[in-house]
Amino acid sequence: MRAERLLETCVYAGDLAAAEKFYVEVLGLQVYSRQPGRHVFFRCGEAMFLVFNAENTRKSRIEIGGQELPNHGCHGQGHVAFVSSEADLPEWKERLSELGIAIEAEVRWPAGGQSIYIRDPAGNSVELATPGLWGLAG
Amino acid sequence: MRAERLLETCVYAGDLAAAEKFYVEVLGLQVYSRQPGRHVFFRCGEAMFLVFNAENTRKSRIEIGGQELPNHGCHGQGHVAFVSSEADLPEWKERLSELGIAIEAEVRWPAGGQSIYIRDPAGNSVELATPGLWGLAG
Repeated sequence: MRAERLLETCVYAGDLAAAEKFYVEVLGLQVYSRQPGRHVFFRCGEAMFLVFNAENTRKSRIEIGGQELPNHGCHGQGHVAFVSSEADLPEWKERLSELGIAIEAEVRWPAGGQSIYIRDPAGNSVELATPGLWGLAG
Repeated sequence: MRAERLLETCVYAGDLAAAEKFYVEVLGLQVYSRQPGRHVFFRCGEAMFLVFNAENTRKSRIEIGGQELPNHGCHGQGHVAFVSSEADLPEWKERLSELGIAIEAEVRWPAGGQSIYIRDPAGNSVELATPGLWGLAG
């Protein structure tokens, strides 16, 4: 048995409204669903990007069909990366500049590929990167 | 501009060797690279699954071409989900049972789809789920 694909990626944010605004306005993600105070979920291609309020998900209990969902919740600055093509990176930089989003770092990887790093409002490190950095197809 | 695909998903673990053993032996992931004490990286389909030691990545500075990589690092129990087909879920359950991995919860979602939840050695909540849960194709 082999897990062959990621389905859900998550970060945590205390201010979900600010997170939603950022991921919609800056990264262009579409909201899939939200539960104020607990989470906002986004579809991203064939996977889901989930932002949870750790204060809520560490403690609260949700039951689905009599089954309690496992709790989870992290504090600190997490990390997530989204794909950008090589061709789109300059456009991303221009867009981030227009939106007043500081680029914290810009990396050309020795083995190929490029990344730019920004922060979401919760301080999570958000990367836009070319898949070639990992030897993956664009 | 729209981020159309996730490239990197990460969780944190203080004991990277235990995390590596778990993700290789239980979930069948392939190690892409490791840096003892800092990280172990896995390829998973067209994306990367990254396990970092937050003690290291919160503080340490790595430079690539004179550019410092942004720090990050979370404490607590994170969450990640991997795809399982409906057909494979019974096999996953059998395999987890053989390996002595407790299933913490098993959910049939009201709108369709199923999930099983286990914990990695660091306590992160690891889910195997059918993409139909999100209305996504398998």
